[in-house]
Amino acid sequence: MGGIDVVPLIARSLTMGDECHNRTTAGSALFMGQVLPYIIDSDLDRKLIADLASFMASAELFFLHIVMASAKSIANAMSGIPFCSIVTAISRNGVEVGLRVSGTGDEWFVGPASEIEGVYYPGFGPDDAEADMGDSAITEVVGLGAFSMGAALPHAYTIGVSAQDAIRYQESMVDITMMRHPAFKIPAVDFKGTPVGIDIRKVVEANLVPIINTGIAHKEGGKIGGGIAKVPMECFTKALEALGKVTKEGL
Amino acid sequence: MGGIDVVPLIARSLTMGDECHNRTTAGSALFMGQVLPYIIDSDLDRKLIADLASFMASAELFFLHIVMASAKSIANAMSGIPFCSIVTAISRNGVEVGLRVSGTGDEWFVGPASEIEGVYYPGFGPDDAEADMGDSAITEVVGLGAFSMGAALPHAYTIGVSAQDAIRYQESMVDITMMRHPAFKIPAVDFKGTPVGIDIRKVVEANLVPIINTGIAHKEGGKIGGGIAKVPMECFTKALEALGKVTKEGL
Repeated sequence: MGGIDVVPLIARSLTMGDECHNRTTAGSALFMGQVLPYIIDSDLDRKLIADLASFMASAELFFLHIVMASAKSIANAMSGIPFCSIVTAISRNGVEVGLRVSGTGDEWFVGPASEIEGVYYPGFGPDDAEADMGDSAITEVVGLGAFSMGAALPHAYTIGVSAQDAIRYQESMVDITMMRHPAFKIPAVDFKGTPVGIDIRKVVEANLVPIINTGIAHKEGGKIGGGIAKVPMECFTKALEALGKVTKEGL
Repeated sequence: MGGIDVVPLIARSLTMGDECHNRTTAGSALFMGQVLPYIIDSDLDRKLIADLASFMASAELFFLHIVMASAKSIANAMSGIPFCSIVTAISRNGVEVGLRVSGTGDEWFVGPASEIEGVYYPGFGPDDAEADMGDSAITEVVGLGAFSMGAALPHAYTIGVSAQDAIRYQESMVDITMMRHPAFKIPAVDFKGTPVGIDIRKVVEANLVPIINTGIAHKEGGKIGGGIAKVPMECFTKALEALGKVTKEGL
């Protein structure tokens, strides 16, 4: 089928209730529509394809895998630009959060993982929860997830965030980003682009850290809720100090 | 497959950018996901199924047909209730608009078709346009279309209506309807139900007529834009007079 252009699929799903991190319901359905005709027309076993179609129709986070890989590709493309202060990766392991910055290459700047503010499934609470964890915050790096929260009010609702607050959270990220995304546009703000390009200088100056839409993991495994995590300020102050020491020769 | 429960599909698509009259993009994708596994597993020709899947993935208004039939079934179920002042059908033919009311049975109350306020495709204007036309306003009768405009900001955008105005249009219908729909809920108003059950007494009392999301048809055929039409007040004053004359025996 000659490959799939993922950016238009992401852009479309942002107009259909997805923020492309914790909710990819529309994106998964649109992706299914693109690939299934080719799979049906292949020489695979027919019963297997019926099972696959059935699985894809119910696997609402299927598209997240494709979004994450695409986000990583986009982030890699903006890595290693001399003196550039834009974040190119955010990753968390339940204990620490690390981030990378374009102008400082592959170095990780690390701080403590935050607790997640959100909603727990019945029977679970903060004592059961692991701190913020996972590599999927690469979506926030490219203007998705919490940075497009106003696109996904059905997700916001499940983590106790009202429609107005979802839009407010999203728009608050304008203060710490480089620009509005030219392709990822949000209906609720009359199709303005999502805030994109986290600038470590703006984060420190505004004293405002990026937010992440994330699931809450149980200490012993399994998902027990969802909410909003914060990237610790320590990552940004460390990164800014390091960037200040970079010279054209030292990169 | 034992039939499809359409109401949950409609409810779901309202959280994914559809208002289920002029936009059914999500509903069509969700419907495809439900039926394709069964079609793939049938003994139909494989190439034919691949073509069908390809067609369904691109036919964004496919689900509208199913919505209209469902809306008609729902409306029929609320027809013929003694003294009931709720509208059970709205239909337009480009010249006149007619409506039916539950307590007056099959009688049509008719007024002149309105011009459509909206946006024309390049090269076309009001002189080319047919007045309001079509049977699809049955969707508005059950709380969809213009009555759930706040669900479909991508559609509102194409007819020149901002996010805030789309929500305002939808919410203005609360004044002339019986209730909030218990299943059709809108993310942008924190999952309150769509206004449903147009009450002819409230329309006359508030001096506010229902609105319809609709395409603009060229006088010689073809779609040349989209916008908002109004049901003429004359239909409602005639219907209210007729309802006032109904006795238990006369129904």
